[in-house]
Amino acid sequence: VVLVDIGNTHFHIIKNDEIKHLREIVKFDDEVYYISVNEEKEKQLRKLNPGAFNLKDYVKFNTSYKGLGIDRIMACKSINNGVVVDAGSAITIDIMEDDVHLGGIIMPGINAFKEAYGKISKVLNLNPGEFEFLPNNTADALNAGSIGAIVCMIEKVRGKKKVYLTGGDGQFLLKFIKNAEFIEDLVFRGMKKTLKEMERL
Amino acid sequence: VVLVDIGNTHFHIIKNDEIKHLREIVKFDDEVYYISVNEEKEKQLRKLNPGAFNLKDYVKFNTSYKGLGIDRIMACKSINNGVVVDAGSAITIDIMEDDVHLGGIIMPGINAFKEAYGKISKVLNLNPGEFEFLPNNTADALNAGSIGAIVCMIEKVRGKKKVYLTGGDGQFLLKFIKNAEFIEDLVFRGMKKTLKEMERL
Repeated sequence: VVLVDIGNTHFHIIKNDEIKHLREIVKFDDEVYYISVNEEKEKQLRKLNPGAFNLKDYVKFNTSYKGLGIDRIMACKSINNGVVVDAGSAITIDIMEDDVHLGGIIMPGINAFKEAYGKISKVLNLNPGEFEFLPNNTADALNAGSIGAIVCMIEKVRGKKKVYLTGGDGQFLLKFIKNAEFIEDLVFRGMKKTLKEMERL
Repeated sequence: VVLVDIGNTHFHIIKNDEIKHLREIVKFDDEVYYISVNEEKEKQLRKLNPGAFNLKDYVKFNTSYKGLGIDRIMACKSINNGVVVDAGSAITIDIMEDDVHLGGIIMPGINAFKEAYGKISKVLNLNPGEFEFLPNNTADALNAGSIGAIVCMIEKVRGKKKVYLTGGDGQFLLKFIKNAEFIEDLVFRGMKKTLKEMERL
């Protein structure tokens, strides 16, 4: 079995507990279960893997959020209580309480912040790293205004909840957040949970 | 006398207490005093107004921040105690205490957030407006992740200080921040203060 999480930038793949992030999709000999937030990339997957099975319509998830992305649903589905942060092209911050999704926020991802600054002025060059909240130079001022803003939002909505980080920048963000854990395969855990509920796994 | 504040997007001009925001600079018959954060636009100003006087090297300002933009210096110079927020192409958040600048943060401006979201995915369409911090739809989730993030940062660093807003989106942000005031000519007030100290006004 291969699980594929189609994002806006990458195809995230897990096979035999090994995770890969591909720019281009390949043909698999195994059964393929997938979720997708990108129509174009989904077409590419289905072209090479016509039997690929979309889990979207089979997942059970309790939320009143309209139009919640399927990747967010899967990541949240694996957490009973906590704040789920998926730090990719966008950064989503979702609140789970007793297996119910209470709401969520979408911020630009770290690279999107970098590009946004660069577009405003060539002197606004973000190099993601350590910073303080009373910066005394441009490098720190940019880190506070991006990484710091992301941390600020997480802290604002978390209450006393544990934070679960995933996505390409999840490990990087971990060092800025207390009582947090990085779980690389958080989305895949939700997909596996769904397959178990479907009695396919 | 004409005062010109050259930003990354506009020439901000005050003449006879009337403020204008021009995309293209014009020739003035009056004395011109200016500041600039954009070299290219500064050249355009100086080409049409060769006698224009750059205030940059004449301003007295107490800070340990290295490379603080001259527009931020001027806006902060008019406030003795408070948080100075200039919401333009970028959003700067600076802390003033007893006429000393303690530090500052740079965030993307609201339009930069909008463009950043749009670049990530066409479904992430930011329409700046009201929101809550536990959003249950994409429109609110984007507003919380941008406007909310800006407000979150301001609240985090303000302590009990009053917030002074200026810039193109300053009036818009006013409704989200308590104990705050919008001052359209904040940068110009700093330029006038500088001219008075130079005994030119």
